[in-house]
Amino acid sequence: MTDQKYSELAIEKIAKTKINDVDFDNINFGRKFTDHMFYCDFIDGAWQQPKIVPYQPMTLEPSARALHYGQAVFEGMKAYKDDNGNAFLFRPEDNHRRINISAARLAMPEFPKEYFMEGLTTLMKMDKDWIKPGVGNSLYVRPFMFAIDPAIAAAPSEAYRFMIICSPAKAYYTSKIRVLFSEKYSRSADGGVGYAKAAGNYAAQFYPTGLAQKRGYQQIIWTDAKTHEFLEEAGTMNIFFRVNDTLLTAPISDRILDGITRKSVIQLAEDSNIPVEVRRVTVSEIKEAATNGSLKEIFGAGTAAVISPISAFEHGGEVFEIPDTENSYALRLKKQLLDIQHNLSEDKHGWRYEVK
Amino acid sequence: MTDQKYSELAIEKIAKTKINDVDFDNINFGRKFTDHMFYCDFIDGAWQQPKIVPYQPMTLEPSARALHYGQAVFEGMKAYKDDNGNAFLFRPEDNHRRINISAARLAMPEFPKEYFMEGLTTLMKMDKDWIKPGVGNSLYVRPFMFAIDPAIAAAPSEAYRFMIICSPAKAYYTSKIRVLFSEKYSRSADGGVGYAKAAGNYAAQFYPTGLAQKRGYQQIIWTDAKTHEFLEEAGTMNIFFRVNDTLLTAPISDRILDGITRKSVIQLAEDSNIPVEVRRVTVSEIKEAATNGSLKEIFGAGTAAVISPISAFEHGGEVFEIPDTENSYALRLKKQLLDIQHNLSEDKHGWRYEVK
Repeated sequence: MTDQKYSELAIEKIAKTKINDVDFDNINFGRKFTDHMFYCDFIDGAWQQPKIVPYQPMTLEPSARALHYGQAVFEGMKAYKDDNGNAFLFRPEDNHRRINISAARLAMPEFPKEYFMEGLTTLMKMDKDWIKPGVGNSLYVRPFMFAIDPAIAAAPSEAYRFMIICSPAKAYYTSKIRVLFSEKYSRSADGGVGYAKAAGNYAAQFYPTGLAQKRGYQQIIWTDAKTHEFLEEAGTMNIFFRVNDTLLTAPISDRILDGITRKSVIQLAEDSNIPVEVRRVTVSEIKEAATNGSLKEIFGAGTAAVISPISAFEHGGEVFEIPDTENSYALRLKKQLLDIQHNLSEDKHGWRYEVK
Repeated sequence: MTDQKYSELAIEKIAKTKINDVDFDNINFGRKFTDHMFYCDFIDGAWQQPKIVPYQPMTLEPSARALHYGQAVFEGMKAYKDDNGNAFLFRPEDNHRRINISAARLAMPEFPKEYFMEGLTTLMKMDKDWIKPGVGNSLYVRPFMFAIDPAIAAAPSEAYRFMIICSPAKAYYTSKIRVLFSEKYSRSADGGVGYAKAAGNYAAQFYPTGLAQKRGYQQIIWTDAKTHEFLEEAGTMNIFFRVNDTLLTAPISDRILDGITRKSVIQLAEDSNIPVEVRRVTVSEIKEAATNGSLKEIFGAGTAAVISPISAFEHGGEVFEIPDTENSYALRLKKQLLDIQHNLSEDKHGWRYEVK
């Protein structure tokens, strides 16, 4: 991308905002979108002029390669507003870096940082009224890229579209959830695409998750495909275990997403002198800890979910309930994270990115 | 689907055929499409009226779930014509069965057989002139289904589109190919979606295949993710090994596609009294057979590729050339298959499906 000559961002504003049609107190996640969207097409080996236009449907060929071969990657991030009306993103450059890592694994072109950051911040400014103040409110921001080349040969596309769309959000999981440790199904293989935010990784989880939901579990904690003995991630969240006073979480690998919330949680825990062990966590040690009472908490960490406490897990036909704990790490870390995101506390790691 | 009330197929014909714009002697696979396409939408829990309309772009929301979470499956099949102008499909009911198996794994609804077969055969009749006679010519038929629900929550879509589009084709690989046995990257995991024709399975192969291509190998033979010791499939083809006079091929599993060409080849081999062993095939036995001269052939089998002979493989930094063999199984089986498909020989298993 280094030889790319940059085109100026073109802007077409909506005639009349749709914001008054939205009931912000009753948001169904991911179904309402803001007034504008960003897009940029990759054609003939180069990114074309980036544009912000009114949010609208698009025209796609039935042969568009994304629909046949799954060349599609995405990111999830959130914008927040403080009580003075200032808007912030959280570590957006990490989302840019990661979507390019995902793209490379799916043989897609990198999207230039200049286009990403200018498109993102301009879109945030244009749709700033859609970011509502108050902890728990946010604007979910979805950058994504997909193959649009109209050809059904099983090979990388020659044309792509990069887009950013935005949807107002409340917290994703509102109460504690119950999870199943996977014993049969898998999310990803060694040498596969599990570390990428590749579209196909998500559809692959829906069927087994549906089976779990029928049995009263909201999510699956995926284990390694090889042995099902190591606890990896939850598909939409990374996973942390608190045994006595130590936090355990799996190291990132080619099967596990390098979560931005995950690494922020690790940093915040270390800042609070909470011992953190980033190492492979076994099903058997967590079952043993649950049995002898040393398992104090399990929680998920992800952009959509923020931090999501887990009240029980099932494995091998046995259900393990996790009693409420005083001095919950999950609640403390969630508050610290939200306070930084909403400009309510010092941001000593420079994670807040003010939109101005 | 059993309670579905069937709607009649609606047909809108193209005003003027595009067939005269196509140079059938110089076909670039998968880039030209016939005059018509079939589609049917799943909305509010039911398949709506199926339609055949002129081939055309479609309107899709940026939030259409297929683009974000990869809920997309497909099939590949071919139509053939004999010298008397009769057109045939090859085992199309197997494609219908398989797309529903793929759909179920991705938490998508089954598409009714009645709609599939009527849409398919009507489309074949309407675009019959696009099926050219002569062995090597065919019309590639692409049924596919994808999520259209405009919502970016990571959960199964509530709306889907099923389509069939058709593209004139020549043989996919025209000369012998060289392949790499995978030692690092993987196509699928135990408990994953490798057996489904899921869109995401294909994008995941592009990057490692590109690395192989830079080194002069057209395809990768995927090995099991766990040990990389078992030879599985090639992503667009199943794989057969001839050691002395015996054919070896991997059994289908949750990682390996149940190929229609694969099972036809096994049947044709058995009909010819060729010993076939369907069992796990190890990298080490194939290297040993290549070294001691008992490895006579390797070939791929798939709808697009038909039967594709392989002239060499690399593993562990060593290249093994496979000398041409007299009395090639690959060529004999390919001829038998094409003769049945083109109505040039007896069809004792009832695989031909005449379009009339």
